[in-house]
Amino acid sequence: MAISDPSLFDAFAACGATAAGGVHRPCASAADGAARDVLEAALNAAGAQTRTDAVGNQFGLFRLAEAPDAPLVMMGSHLDSQPNGGRFDGALGVAAAVHVGAALMRLKREGARFSADFCAVNWTNEEGARFRPSLLGSGVYVGRHTADEALAALDDDGVTLRDALSAIGRNGGDQAPPLPACYLELHVEQGVTLEQAGVAVGVVTRNWGATKFDVTYKGEQAHTGPCPMGLRRDALLAASHLIVEARAIADRWPGKVHSSVGRLVVAPNSANVVPCETRLSLEIRSNDDGVLAEASALADAAIATAAERAAVEVASVVRNERAIRPMPAAVSDLVEASAAALGAPSLRLDTVAGHDAISLLGHCPTGLVFVPSAGGIAHNEAEFTAPKDVETGFSVCLEAAARLCRAAGSPERALDQQGLAA
Amino acid sequence: MAISDPSLFDAFAACGATAAGGVHRPCASAADGAARDVLEAALNAAGAQTRTDAVGNQFGLFRLAEAPDAPLVMMGSHLDSQPNGGRFDGALGVAAAVHVGAALMRLKREGARFSADFCAVNWTNEEGARFRPSLLGSGVYVGRHTADEALAALDDDGVTLRDALSAIGRNGGDQAPPLPACYLELHVEQGVTLEQAGVAVGVVTRNWGATKFDVTYKGEQAHTGPCPMGLRRDALLAASHLIVEARAIADRWPGKVHSSVGRLVVAPNSANVVPCETRLSLEIRSNDDGVLAEASALADAAIATAAERAAVEVASVVRNERAIRPMPAAVSDLVEASAAALGAPSLRLDTVAGHDAISLLGHCPTGLVFVPSAGGIAHNEAEFTAPKDVETGFSVCLEAAARLCRAAGSPERALDQQGLAA
Repeated sequence: MAISDPSLFDAFAACGATAAGGVHRPCASAADGAARDVLEAALNAAGAQTRTDAVGNQFGLFRLAEAPDAPLVMMGSHLDSQPNGGRFDGALGVAAAVHVGAALMRLKREGARFSADFCAVNWTNEEGARFRPSLLGSGVYVGRHTADEALAALDDDGVTLRDALSAIGRNGGDQAPPLPACYLELHVEQGVTLEQAGVAVGVVTRNWGATKFDVTYKGEQAHTGPCPMGLRRDALLAASHLIVEARAIADRWPGKVHSSVGRLVVAPNSANVVPCETRLSLEIRSNDDGVLAEASALADAAIATAAERAAVEVASVVRNERAIRPMPAAVSDLVEASAAALGAPSLRLDTVAGHDAISLLGHCPTGLVFVPSAGGIAHNEAEFTAPKDVETGFSVCLEAAARLCRAAGSPERALDQQGLAA
Repeated sequence: MAISDPSLFDAFAACGATAAGGVHRPCASAADGAARDVLEAALNAAGAQTRTDAVGNQFGLFRLAEAPDAPLVMMGSHLDSQPNGGRFDGALGVAAAVHVGAALMRLKREGARFSADFCAVNWTNEEGARFRPSLLGSGVYVGRHTADEALAALDDDGVTLRDALSAIGRNGGDQAPPLPACYLELHVEQGVTLEQAGVAVGVVTRNWGATKFDVTYKGEQAHTGPCPMGLRRDALLAASHLIVEARAIADRWPGKVHSSVGRLVVAPNSANVVPCETRLSLEIRSNDDGVLAEASALADAAIATAAERAAVEVASVVRNERAIRPMPAAVSDLVEASAAALGAPSLRLDTVAGHDAISLLGHCPTGLVFVPSAGGIAHNEAEFTAPKDVETGFSVCLEAAARLCRAAGSPERALDQQGLAA
């Protein structure tokens, strides 16, 4: 049974398509609005009831069960992209959710009985590229942020998420569905583990921890010519010391710590002016609690030392921590069993990146399924996953979702369900 | 005789005024357009004929001499500012030129005889903040750039100087006046030499040399999470290594080398993406030819080493050199004699910064007069020069200009002229 419909995925990829084969689809941009319209049309065509909540999360409810208050199985990801990002990141998981919902509706029409409803979802601002923080829509859904906090988030031009959503007609008035009995997400791995193992299906059992710092240095504007070096308070020099040191921190624990500064804003950013302010986003990630704590403490110290070396002030440090946590074993077991039932080898692995599934972790049973990324390339226009791997990923998700929807959404009970093949 | 009219300087300062007492008046912005309108009105009121050339340089010709083809004495500076810059930088010199022109016209009406005409000028895009390179308008005037090259310069939003000037109605059709017999410029020192010496008048006798580099690093966009550290090609890490090393180069020659990176543009500049491109402006300045050559060679090496350390490519390096040159002795002697005639102590000193007078150096006899900057603060909203120092600077310029206009613009002959006081 071929379940994937490449036309929906391709239709998403056409929204904000770049010449180099990627997508440039910032959250709540016109391109994101176009992709959301494509999603809504696809959900309606597949027989779902669509809802959009106050922060633009889009839900498509597939009524499968007889009972009006049946539990929910939810599946989804996000349609926003990084600047000049890849077309698979996020969009693949949304396309998978629509196709799983459509397939389950077909099964229902063919006589299948379900004890849970299914819901496909597109979460707002997963990437954290246009608005910060990342995982914003799913964070509101689980109560980590209020809708008002999220809607007040600003992009670099000072536009609020509220106004950006309004501009694309996506500041919805619907209530979000209740927390599901189980949440599943299909995503590209963005690493090389599956490709190197030659395995199409990754069962994520744990997320790496992360400490994320938003640092602002304040120095003093001065003329780059006559101002004596000893009097300069150069906020860019401070940022540069920190960036160099952040790399050195990662190099102390090869393979166990990843670090980066992806974002740096310089003011006034004029060739002849000593910069008076820099704002940067630094992250330290690790797969080991003790190492993460130690590396994060080194980063704390480096933030201060860099300021001293450039005679500037640390104006603010906002520090966000994401703990290393296991994914629920029952969901991992279910995904693994679903892959096995289809004859698809699978591999258990960590996720280094955050995903909406990690955002929901702890609020409901949550599963994250990876398919391979060619060369591990991610957040890049060259991102690619082979069609046969996409097909396998879609099939495994449908298998797991069908079992869940026959088991009132319980991953433990779903393990004992007959598969679609039966 | 009180010659300075604070109302014109204040009127300039009101154009693009910031809450903190500075000005934000990028070249060819609406604020710059407003300041240019103020200048044109002041020139007309003072009896000058106004001209605007193809790159927006504004000239005000004061016809002082009997002969229709009399030589010209020119004086001016610029009205554009750095982002959140000071109100004295540039605007003081333009205000001084208008007041000198107006005073000379009054003297003519009172019966004085002159053998040169006077011209006040506002040069376009001296700062190099909105459009690069700096000294653009004066560079076109002396033939260093063509008007078409200058008009094609782009700001960070991709707007050409041509379109920006058109938007403020300042893409003029007038021919620029011929090269003057002598050019004078009054400017704030932007350093602490005059303040520390307690002297109001600086006679600039030499400019520091500079090597300016526009460097582009190209790496590869990647996800900051899963991408293994060893595979990253981080263009921001390369820029950071270079910025740290640029400071170390200056520190090898205390007081003899100034270095800075004032401008750094990061792409795609998203917290979760390893940067694929950085573009930065690095400058090395020195007062010693040999040291400048050595420090610049170290910078060349540092540009390459930084790329290697971050596994990125040096996509381009544009290298511009400004030689250390003496100002013509006759003009310096004239300024010094003019100050002495007014009883104002003066001091000979270098300029570390570039100015339009340096742009004209070598094309005509050129003089640069400094007044003190409180605390040496420059390119900063807190920039300040005391009113009595401004008054002294204006008086010295009028004295020197009057002598020049009585001596057919020749600084050598002007030295022998009687002063205004005589």
